[in-house]
Amino acid sequence: MRHRLVVVGGGAAGMSAASAARRVDPSLEIVVLEASGFAAYGLCGIPYYLSGLVTAADDLVAYPPAFFRDRRRINLKLNARATRLDPDRHVVYYVEDGREARMSYHRLVVATGGVPALPPVPGLSDQRVFTVRALEDAISLRSLLDAGRIGRALVVGAGYIGLEMAEALAARGVAVTVVEMTSQVMPNLDAPIAALVEKEVRRQGVDLRLGARLEEVRRTADQLEAVIDGSSLAVDVIVLAVGVRPGSDIAAAAGAATGPGGALLVDDQMRTSLPDVYAVGDCIAPYHRVLGRPAFVPLGPAANKTGRVAGTVAAGGDARFPGIVGTAVVKVFDLAVARTGLTLTEALAEGLPAVATDVEGRSRAKYYPNTGPVSVRLVHQRDGRLLGAQLVGAGDGVAKRIDALAIALQAGFDLTDLLAADLSYAPPYAPVYEPVLLAAQAAMAAAARPNEQVLA
Amino acid sequence: MRHRLVVVGGGAAGMSAASAARRVDPSLEIVVLEASGFAAYGLCGIPYYLSGLVTAADDLVAYPPAFFRDRRRINLKLNARATRLDPDRHVVYYVEDGREARMSYHRLVVATGGVPALPPVPGLSDQRVFTVRALEDAISLRSLLDAGRIGRALVVGAGYIGLEMAEALAARGVAVTVVEMTSQVMPNLDAPIAALVEKEVRRQGVDLRLGARLEEVRRTADQLEAVIDGSSLAVDVIVLAVGVRPGSDIAAAAGAATGPGGALLVDDQMRTSLPDVYAVGDCIAPYHRVLGRPAFVPLGPAANKTGRVAGTVAAGGDARFPGIVGTAVVKVFDLAVARTGLTLTEALAEGLPAVATDVEGRSRAKYYPNTGPVSVRLVHQRDGRLLGAQLVGAGDGVAKRIDALAIALQAGFDLTDLLAADLSYAPPYAPVYEPVLLAAQAAMAAAARPNEQVLA
Repeated sequence: MRHRLVVVGGGAAGMSAASAARRVDPSLEIVVLEASGFAAYGLCGIPYYLSGLVTAADDLVAYPPAFFRDRRRINLKLNARATRLDPDRHVVYYVEDGREARMSYHRLVVATGGVPALPPVPGLSDQRVFTVRALEDAISLRSLLDAGRIGRALVVGAGYIGLEMAEALAARGVAVTVVEMTSQVMPNLDAPIAALVEKEVRRQGVDLRLGARLEEVRRTADQLEAVIDGSSLAVDVIVLAVGVRPGSDIAAAAGAATGPGGALLVDDQMRTSLPDVYAVGDCIAPYHRVLGRPAFVPLGPAANKTGRVAGTVAAGGDARFPGIVGTAVVKVFDLAVARTGLTLTEALAEGLPAVATDVEGRSRAKYYPNTGPVSVRLVHQRDGRLLGAQLVGAGDGVAKRIDALAIALQAGFDLTDLLAADLSYAPPYAPVYEPVLLAAQAAMAAAARPNEQVLA
Repeated sequence: MRHRLVVVGGGAAGMSAASAARRVDPSLEIVVLEASGFAAYGLCGIPYYLSGLVTAADDLVAYPPAFFRDRRRINLKLNARATRLDPDRHVVYYVEDGREARMSYHRLVVATGGVPALPPVPGLSDQRVFTVRALEDAISLRSLLDAGRIGRALVVGAGYIGLEMAEALAARGVAVTVVEMTSQVMPNLDAPIAALVEKEVRRQGVDLRLGARLEEVRRTADQLEAVIDGSSLAVDVIVLAVGVRPGSDIAAAAGAATGPGGALLVDDQMRTSLPDVYAVGDCIAPYHRVLGRPAFVPLGPAANKTGRVAGTVAAGGDARFPGIVGTAVVKVFDLAVARTGLTLTEALAEGLPAVATDVEGRSRAKYYPNTGPVSVRLVHQRDGRLLGAQLVGAGDGVAKRIDALAIALQAGFDLTDLLAADLSYAPPYAPVYEPVLLAAQAAMAAAARPNEQVLA
């Protein structure tokens, strides 16, 4: 009997697992159960599809289903939602086109992704209330936009997805209000860096309400009435972007060990605590190399990489995922906003003796056209250990600067090592004093002044 | 008696040394002898001044002379050319405004920069033949351009400066011919990467002649006649960009030890072999961390850094320069062209068991507008040791991608480490499979196939 690998979830992580397994074992039977009508789509592209930068929803799909079925001989079942896992009997239960079914497996990969968190607010079940996690929802929202039926939108949550959505809607001429419970945009950045992002969001005309709470949503004749801190706002749609929780329910219910935020715990070959069950992507807490423990940081690159590792190992090959350092970048209107490692807030919460140093450098030589400010925050210890970095500025060059810091963190650099870095210089791309190195220099100077308050 | 520091050369490296010394010792007497009429100017900005992107030559000057004299109390002597060094007596001889003079020093920093190499071609002493090393020359050339007196130009040398000049001249509507002795543009890149640059240069309408030699220059009534491989070309100006040699003559004549290309040898605190004499910038061969020995790689960042280290140490402070890894980036029309570490050619010349792996990735998500190809070449050993990288593509994001590889080299990464890097992803800035990681993956696969020819 041929061995069968079942992958639960046909997103980027799941299809990476299936594809990697095929490369290792040409004879393996590979089945993918995908709850939605789409597989292998780029969730991260949804804002750009809504804004119109990306023309068609199909453009977000890496490969069409036929590619997986015909070229990779993967049995991709769409609209097949897994409901239960029996790890002792190696059986997965699912509902396909309304009918219950079951399938046995030799190995199983859980790639159930993230689930949009929902705020505990009455009235959210309206069809004009959207989340940003499924292509179907995005298609509905886009058709409303294309029909010119959205004049005002409320985005709930000012994290990176909320701000991407605000930008996308604003690009379509929609008046956008963003309501955020905490006192800053992008709560996963330190406040001084978030303040730079906030300024840009306001500059672009977004009605940003920080420290504010959506209390209720009511349906009126042809609109929604959002009650925010007691006062009411009429909007055409509401987009919920208050966060993502790991979609670990099925595996957790079957007894798989979970960690931070309820995400599945895995080893460096993506094995869960259940026999022959692997997990990948946004439903797991991968190892965080700076924290030295698992952390729930649901982002695309780790989803693809963990998928590939699990698929390879489940099919009998060898691969390892050594973990993340927490690198992320987002475009917020004209700014690139990037982070890697720990923020000061995170480092202090972890009990680390962390301080932060902020500098503002330039993106290009000062005499070169379109040079702009680049704000760099380094988070470090007084002994020089580098813990993290945050970066804000205009343009592509700013975004990719974070990668150098991500590698520095991976390598365990201290500030002296970072200051010694031989970074590229040419007037169109960088000033001769690269902002990252200016930051390293300032951080060393700050760390050398033991009795002084370092910028925090 | 106050201690006196004399800095020979007022370019970026020399002024960095003088400024650093002032920060360490407020009472030190600091004299800078600068042969030209300008100090602290950005040589690298000359092409952008010629193209008109930078309006005035003064914009290239980091700080005006008054800043150094008044704010930093540095005795900056312009038009003061050092001629001889007597290290036993601690005396430097110089010519200031036509008069010979001498000055004693306690410590001296040699910051005499690079000297344009001149091809052995008759007729180059014409005033319509320029090099790109002094602001005075650039001002003369720019005034000819502004006056509309240049219809056709010949650039000799297709290294990075030659190509920057070709672009600058083309931007002014000048018909440009580039003649290069070797068979490729940018001889410091491997041929397959240089071929991508060549394609761009030709696409932009430059008359590029590879494997061709300028044999003679003759003056005609109102033009120059350049003889290239026996045939003659009428041009209005000639720009020589065939390379730079270290301006180490004065120090070498005084007995300072020299290394590669005649560049001055220094320790990690910039001490030459002469007592109390330091050297910095384009006249030295700094330690190359990948080669494990000194190398002559005259570029701006090391000039500034070595200047700062020498000034700090010469004034009694402590600082070290741990060396370079050979990172460089240049804009060639619409392409960013970057390198770090060793090329395959360089690695093989060094006797290293090197191979190269080439991949083409994308600069952004495939569905995002303005995504373009990014070509990555990794140079590595079969055992996985990373030796260098070259990168070509459109845009700022491509340029700064090299920095991640520079830090990986500094950290001694092998391909497995590089593949594990947690690099940033967002559709506007990178595809989920970052080209650098695709290259690492391909290189590992190539290295694992021992009997196969790896792309070279």
